Amino acid sequence: MTREDITQQIVAARLAKGLTWQQLADAIGKPVVWTTAALLGQHPIPPEQGHQLVELLGLDASAVPVLAAVPMRGGLPAAVPTDPTVYRFYEVLQVYGGAIKELIHEEFGDGIMSAINFSVNIEKKSNQAGDRVVVTLDGKFLPYDWTAADPAQ
Amino acid sequence: MTREDITQQIVAARLAKGLTWQQLADAIGKPVVWTTAALLGQHPIPPEQGHQLVELLGLDASAVPVLAAVPMRGGLPAAVPTDPTVYRFYEVLQVYGGAIKELIHEEFGDGIMSAINFSVNIEKKSNQAGDRVVVTLDGKFLPYDWTAADPAQ
Amino acid sequence: MTREDITQQIVAARLAKGLTWQQLADAIGKPVVWTTAALLGQHPIPPEQGHQLVELLGLDASAVPVLAAVPMRGGLPAAVPTDPTVYRFYEVLQVYGGAIKELIHEEFGDGIMSAINFSVNIEKKSNQAGDRVVVTLDGKFLPYDWTAADPAQ
Amino acid sequence: MTREDITQQIVAARLAKGLTWQQLADAIGKPVVWTTAALLGQHPIPPEQGHQLVELLGLDASAVPVLAAVPMRGGLPAAVPTDPTVYRFYEVLQVYGGAIKELIHEEFGDGIMSAINFSVNIEKKSNQAGDRVVVTLDGKFLPYDWTAADPAQ
Amino acid sequence: MTREDITQQIVAARLAKGLTWQQLADAIGKPVVWTTAALLGQHPIPPEQGHQLVELLGLDASAVPVLAAVPMRGGLPAAVPTDPTVYRFYEVLQVYGGAIKELIHEEFGDGIMSAINFSVNIEKKSNQAGDRVVVTLDGKFLPYDWTAADPAQ
Amino acid sequence: MTREDITQQIVAARLAKGLTWQQLADAIGKPVVWTTAALLGQHPIPPEQGHQLVELLGLDASAVPVLAAVPMRGGLPAAVPTDPTVYRFYEVLQVYGGAIKELIHEEFGDGIMSAINFSVNIEKKSNQAGDRVVVTLDGKFLPYDWTAADPAQ
Amino acid sequence: MTREDITQQIVAARLAKGLTWQQLADAIGKPVVWTTAALLGQHPIPPEQGHQLVELLGLDASAVPVLAAVPMRGGLPAAVPTDPTVYRFYEVLQVYGGAIKELIHEEFGDGIMSAINFSVNIEKKSNQAGDRVVVTLDGKFLPYDWTAADPAQ
Amino acid sequence: MTREDITQQIVAARLAKGLTWQQLADAIGKPVVWTTAALLGQHPIPPEQGHQLVELLGLDASAVPVLAAVPMRGGLPAAVPTDPTVYRFYEVLQVYGGAIKELIHEEFGDGIMSAINFSVNIEKKSNQAGDRVVVTLDGKFLPYDWTAADPAQ
Amino acid sequence: MTREDITQQIVAARLAKGLTWQQLADAIGKPVVWTTAALLGQHPIPPEQGHQLVELLGLDASAVPVLAAVPMRGGLPAAVPTDPTVYRFYEVLQVYGGAIKELIHEEFGDGIMSAINFSVNIEKKSNQAGDRVVVTLDGKFLPYDWTAADPAQ
Amino acid sequence: MTREDITQQIVAARLAKGLTWQQLADAIGKPVVWTTAALLGQHPIPPEQGHQLVELLGLDASAVPVLAAVPMRGGLPAAVPTDPTVYRFYEVLQVYGGAIKELIHEEFGDGIMSAINFSVNIEKKSNQAGDRVVVTLDGKFLPYDWTAADPAQ
Repeated sequence: MTREDITQQIVAARLAKGLTWQQLADAIGKPVVWTTAALLGQHPIPPEQGHQLVELLGLDASAVPVLAAVPMRGGLPAAVPTDPTVYRFYEVLQVYGGAIKELIHEEFGDGIMSAINFSVNIEKKSNQAGDRVVVTLDGKFLPYDWTAADPAQ
Repeated sequence: MTREDITQQIVAARLAKGLTWQQLADAIGKPVVWTTAALLGQHPIPPEQGHQLVELLGLDASAVPVLAAVPMRGGLPAAVPTDPTVYRFYEVLQVYGGAIKELIHEEFGDGIMSAINFSVNIEKKSNQAGDRVVVTLDGKFLPYDWTAADPAQ
Repeated sequence: MTREDITQQIVAARLAKGLTWQQLADAIGKPVVWTTAALLGQHPIPPEQGHQLVELLGLDASAVPVLAAVPMRGGLPAAVPTDPTVYRFYEVLQVYGGAIKELIHEEFGDGIMSAINFSVNIEKKSNQAGDRVVVTLDGKFLPYDWTAADPAQ
Repeated sequence: MTREDITQQIVAARLAKGLTWQQLADAIGKPVVWTTAALLGQHPIPPEQGHQLVELLGLDASAVPVLAAVPMRGGLPAAVPTDPTVYRFYEVLQVYGGAIKELIHEEFGDGIMSAINFSVNIEKKSNQAGDRVVVTLDGKFLPYDWTAADPAQ
Repeated sequence: MTREDITQQIVAARLAKGLTWQQLADAIGKPVVWTTAALLGQHPIPPEQGHQLVELLGLDASAVPVLAAVPMRGGLPAAVPTDPTVYRFYEVLQVYGGAIKELIHEEFGDGIMSAINFSVNIEKKSNQAGDRVVVTLDGKFLPYDWTAADPAQ
Repeated sequence: MTREDITQQIVAARLAKGLTWQQLADAIGKPVVWTTAALLGQHPIPPEQGHQLVELLGLDASAVPVLAAVPMRGGLPAAVPTDPTVYRFYEVLQVYGGAIKELIHEEFGDGIMSAINFSVNIEKKSNQAGDRVVVTLDGKFLPYDWTAADPAQ
Repeated sequence: MTREDITQQIVAARLAKGLTWQQLADAIGKPVVWTTAALLGQHPIPPEQGHQLVELLGLDASAVPVLAAVPMRGGLPAAVPTDPTVYRFYEVLQVYGGAIKELIHEEFGDGIMSAINFSVNIEKKSNQAGDRVVVTLDGKFLPYDWTAADPAQ
Repeated sequence: MTREDITQQIVAARLAKGLTWQQLADAIGKPVVWTTAALLGQHPIPPEQGHQLVELLGLDASAVPVLAAVPMRGGLPAAVPTDPTVYRFYEVLQVYGGAIKELIHEEFGDGIMSAINFSVNIEKKSNQAGDRVVVTLDGKFLPYDWTAADPAQ
Repeated sequence: MTREDITQQIVAARLAKGLTWQQLADAIGKPVVWTTAALLGQHPIPPEQGHQLVELLGLDASAVPVLAAVPMRGGLPAAVPTDPTVYRFYEVLQVYGGAIKELIHEEFGDGIMSAINFSVNIEKKSNQAGDRVVVTLDGKFLPYDWTAADPAQ
Repeated sequence: MTREDITQQIVAARLAKGLTWQQLADAIGKPVVWTTAALLGQHPIPPEQGHQLVELLGLDASAVPVLAAVPMRGGLPAAVPTDPTVYRFYEVLQVYGGAIKELIHEEFGDGIMSAINFSVNIEKKSNQAGDRVVVTLDGKFLPYDWTAADPAQ
């Protein structure tokens, strides 16, 4: 039973039981974006939460250690996503990626926004013309830094 | 003189003159992410602002109508970006793209975050462990809607 | 049972039972292009219609919640389609894509034809030289609009 | 001077002279989509119209025979288009391509919509929720037909 | 049972029963290239011939309606074929494709050789240096023709 | 001056001088498909013919030894051709490639149609429904033959 | 049972029975490179040898006609091989491919080394610095030759 | 002046001066395959030989240090070569690559044929059916060996 | 049972039994990076160690000869890795690959770092700002050396 | 003058002047791998060092601000490198990438080796069998950490 097999079982079981991602996140006391990504195979799930989820979704307990292992990440079925909801984020990268890079450098210096020390949040906000999807990407700035381990080691 | 030629001239002239993207945005009274993306060839620049920028950067006035035309958008040199600062956003899509899709559907129903009725904002925030890059993607929710023009037309 | 599995069962069952796509669309009271796309795995199918279709096609009732979930869209087996009937639409994009872009901008300004607030229609029409396939793509014009959620939120 | 060189000159000259595609089409008495595609390098332009356009745009007369030759067609810079306005048509193919294929076969039998005996039309229509881009693809139905030249030849 | 499954069964059953493609073509009274392509999944097979073939090859009768449906065409396992016998035809396209295009235009004008109103023939011929494979591609010339359905419809 | 440069000059000069490919072939006494392919950069052109062509097209005599060298062959700008006239031959490969392979093996045994000991012919033929493009690919059959040089050498 | 299935069974059975490729080649009296390639799915295996191999490896007799059919050749899992032992041959092509082409033309004229009338040999040789892998590729020179079948046929 | 520029000049000058690769190799006293590969940009050329070649070909002396630097190797214009003479070697890899790998392991153990401690030879040999191209790839066997530098360093 | 099947069983069994890679390496007395790579399908495992591992992990003894065979190496699921932990090493290649090449040539001359006579080591070291991953790639320098087997052989 | 243009000038000037990378690094007092990568276009070079380098290499002073800007990083000409010296590092990733990932997780937990807070070192070491290239990749361990900016901001 690979992690991919378990992910497929989770997807099917969630729909069959009519559970929302929010309910699953609440059940294990974790943020909902993190929980959803983890259940879709992108993060390890600690055994305690793994046991709760396996029970909730009716999966076999042998899934727990597999869920607890760090998975091979990467969830797009193709280099360029085909699903319109996902594609729009790739389009943002095509249209604004260069500008975001320039402005990170202008405001912070040479470096990157970490995608590891990082969180994502999704909110429903509104303005006069209707509901808006507001996705906040929040990552630590990591400056390019030419450093090595202490030589004495 | 194509738009690509003009973009290269802008990039070179900005560095030679020591102007920041923020200064250029302030000069034309537009948001800085929009201005940077536009100067990098991703948005048309109205003639009035085009004239200001051309003068500021010391370009030929013949660039103005080319800047004012809608460009062929898309600024990544390869389908998967190679620059680390840009790549992290692609990585976010690989790791969180599926979760973001699921949660947009759970909170809003079937549809997408528009990348057209849309804005991006970049802020420097902090927490105890240091500065953070906070990128806010803010797009109108567009529900899947099977609609046609009025038949009488 | 994934959505892909169910799509395969639908394709097989429709042929075995000799049902047309039009009959399936009529049975659920939905437009035929929408219905066909949905049955091929591109749209969620509300539970009510899901139950009707599952019964009509002789599938297991457990398919209903899977059909009701928003699918990971994208139905081309390769980036460039190989089937001649589908390829001709890709060819139209290669030959006329640039012109369509220019004329949308000339007539509407900077923006796109939405593929979300959108419908497709296929008609058999004729002229003196024989039957013609007339495909109408009808999408809301979305102007590029730099907008954000109300700050007070 | 290749056709690609001439296309770049046309694009630049049109903007410099402030001519619309519609004006260019009217000047040569041809449909506007056809004219735009041809000027973007996708169709040969007969010498008579070629001379009119070359004069109108201020190009060298040596461009006329090159414009009159059948070009190597294909105008997308990448297999999957990156420009959002063009991409939406590719997205339509991803989401509705399979359904369009099925319904062409259901309504017409085995065959294709010709992209050669073909025209495209773009119209601005409206409905209560705003302007719509209506693109009509109109191609002769070509049934799969296993035919050979007369053997006596 | 998908069309791909049936194609695999056909390939295996033909070898197990020691039938030639010519024998299968003769049995259903169709040209041998057409029959082989159809049995390899590239053409729909009418029910009458489908029943004959299914019986001859010992397949399940439930394959008949699947064989009768128009398949998703395209039989190369990769964009560039790896099999030497198939690759040589791709090589012909690499070496002579440009010349064939130029000469079709010189002899016929702007247009294409149809691959729909089309037949292929394979013959064994000889010359002094040995047997030759002579493949004749015979397609209707389709001139580029900007036509639309009658407006009154 | 590379072979690619010379090919571009040939293409431009031919159009400027209004010469047909047939006239160029007649001038050097070679078959027209061969001549066209050679002038498009796919075959070496012996110095005698090279001198005739260079004079006819008004090119520099220094092109002659470059034309006489064996070129790096391969004339498609992309792995899958985008031009509709060329694409149809690729489509033939997708739809009939497997069948052609099977029938070459059935009629000739294991081996290939040579694309080296080979000629192509294009003819305009007709049948009751109009002109047809008939392309004949005629290559020596090469059986798979496990042979080595004489060991005594 | 496809040829791919049989190849997998052969690979597994050979290891389980502890047979070398050389022993298998000796058993059927064929060269070892040919035999190995054939057992890996790249050549048809005549029924006589097929029966011997099937018995030796303990496979089902129904594999014999499948082994005897000409397979769809091409054994690299990706266009650029990832296995280091195989990759070095691709690297040779990257570094020496152009030189080999030039020298074949200089020594033999325009043409190719046949990969059909062809054999490969692998030998262990030595020099003072240790054992060497010597791979001899030995193919008939095929000159480019514009030939057609006798017209009278 | 990059190495690529110099390679283009070498290719043109060699043809203009009518020198063979063998003459160039003899002039510098190096093997002809090595010399040809080096002149095509795949090996550094020591200054002494560089001066001889630059004089012989009439290039600028400033090319000598560039020729003497180790180049970025890799001479195929695409991952899969399109030129038929080069392609046949790729085809050999597709058809015999797996077998060559197996037999290297059977005869030598786990490891590779080096492409660095390596030479290639091309010979014209004959057998009763005509001239043969015999290409000998001769590389040191390198066994997989898990070794590290001496820890004391 | 292919090597891929066995690798999947190993991955699952290790997690189910709660064994670390280090414990597995210690059990067979091999370096931990080598052991992990081997168990992930990248190296042959000698029968003695194979038996120990099969017993430890509870696999079938028939896996031993398959583990002992040299595998088809190459463990990245895509040419560009998607997993962030693996991707960083690809990023190092994008950013520092050219510099590493230049400095190997400056310090050692023309040649490569062997990846065959090679070992990898991973250590946890620290400096004032926290733990560091120190990966040491240690390969024999192989100078480009044009050598052949002794001719007398 | 783009950064790419300047990189080409640097590469040419260094060879013409006979400077080593080490000399250039010493001249600006920076580590040699960092300096080489920076001069090859992968890092911004502060104006002070930029002025020194520009003078040393004889470039135009206008290059200094371009060198000081953060470049679009990524130096491989293709996704899979073709140069053998660079390729070996990609091969290491193919063969050991999975193992390195597993062991980073086993020793450090879930996270990555940073390629930003990072240094590379290249050393010549020896063992009894000859010189070795020892490349040390030394990056800060970054644990996956779901963190956000302080909400009060």
